[in-house]
Amino acid sequence: MASGAGPEIERLMALLSKLPGLGPRSARRAALALLKKREQLLIPLTAAMQDAAERVTSCHICGALSTRDPCATCADPARDAAMICVVEEDSALWAMERVGAFSGRYHVLGGLLSALDGVRPEDLRLSGLMQRVSAGGVEELVMALPATVEGQTTAHYIADRVKQLAPEVTITHLARGVPVGGELDWLDDGTIAHAFKSRR
Amino acid sequence: MASGAGPEIERLMALLSKLPGLGPRSARRAALALLKKREQLLIPLTAAMQDAAERVTSCHICGALSTRDPCATCADPARDAAMICVVEEDSALWAMERVGAFSGRYHVLGGLLSALDGVRPEDLRLSGLMQRVSAGGVEELVMALPATVEGQTTAHYIADRVKQLAPEVTITHLARGVPVGGELDWLDDGTIAHAFKSRR
Ligand SMILES: [Zn+2]
Ligand SMILES: [Zn+2]
Repeated sequence: MASGAGPEIERLMALLSKLPGLGPRSARRAALALLKKREQLLIPLTAAMQDAAERVTSCHICGALSTRDPCATCADPARDAAMICVVEEDSALWAMERVGAFSGRYHVLGGLLSALDGVRPEDLRLSGLMQRVSAGGVEELVMALPATVEGQTTAHYIADRVKQLAPEVTITHLARGVPVGGELDWLDDGTIAHAFKSRR
Repeated sequence: MASGAGPEIERLMALLSKLPGLGPRSARRAALALLKKREQLLIPLTAAMQDAAERVTSCHICGALSTRDPCATCADPARDAAMICVVEEDSALWAMERVGAFSGRYHVLGGLLSALDGVRPEDLRLSGLMQRVSAGGVEELVMALPATVEGQTTAHYIADRVKQLAPEVTITHLARGVPVGGELDWLDDGTIAHAFKSRR
């Protein structure tokens, strides 16, 4: 009982501190806010989390988190199936969707190749992407990966494999409006829209 | 669907962004972390929140958040009932307990008097404090309130009422080791311990 708050509240604070961006102090403040705003915050957030835990799954086609499988994007006939935008994580997909400049489909890799962190091709959602590309009908693969070493290594790896499997597919990259080292989720929407329009 | 994440995930992000310290971007990152770490984070945190929603209440004596009523501090015969430490919120109580320099009881006001925000004496847990003081047995009231205008106004108001109701009670204040404008929860433990020992 380091905080004197009792084991239940301690446990709540310890788990909140595992959220990205929350240290021990902000986790304590978050716990207090939850306990003080029981009806407005704690109960609705608990319900939303329970709902998410029970219903959110990964789309078997693109890998996106969704309560439906296939997800809304993969199931939407109005979305251009000839274009697939490849992203690292759902947060990048969400960022692209907020911008609204892209009307194709997605593929969420679930990470990036990294020798340092030991992330290998088989650790990513790559075989599914190669199947989609090989199945035909895809004209363009838009690489919306971060301008980091890992992002560019992953993009090159995918480009090489696609060249062998389906050389007719054009591979484009978001233009260098994405700052070096920058993650897509942290960019303003205008930068993303511009980078998409001037993809190369 | 501003983010393209679907209504369930949107709702999760919207509620997370209401936590102190989380803006829309960090709420999206928190939502993604929860959904990706389903077993390690989402499910245990949901359980901890549900447990808190069902079991955490306010102690009818001191007002502290607790799963027991009276709380562990009020129920502990080893804690000195002659000393009551008056705090604004549970976070300050938790900070005092982490330090471990105080072995008395607490009283959680649940806020501070504020003409600006329209917080009046009847909005705080003040009548309970006056009852505890009038009942006898209290020798010292330690004001552990922030060194802000509201904190000092509240401390003066309490001191005035206690002087009338129970003039034998000594009122002390945490020493000015607490930085002006500083909230107790954000201080390092050493500062709090020092301020407590040199209370005046
Ligand atoms: Zn999908
Ligand atoms: Zn109590």
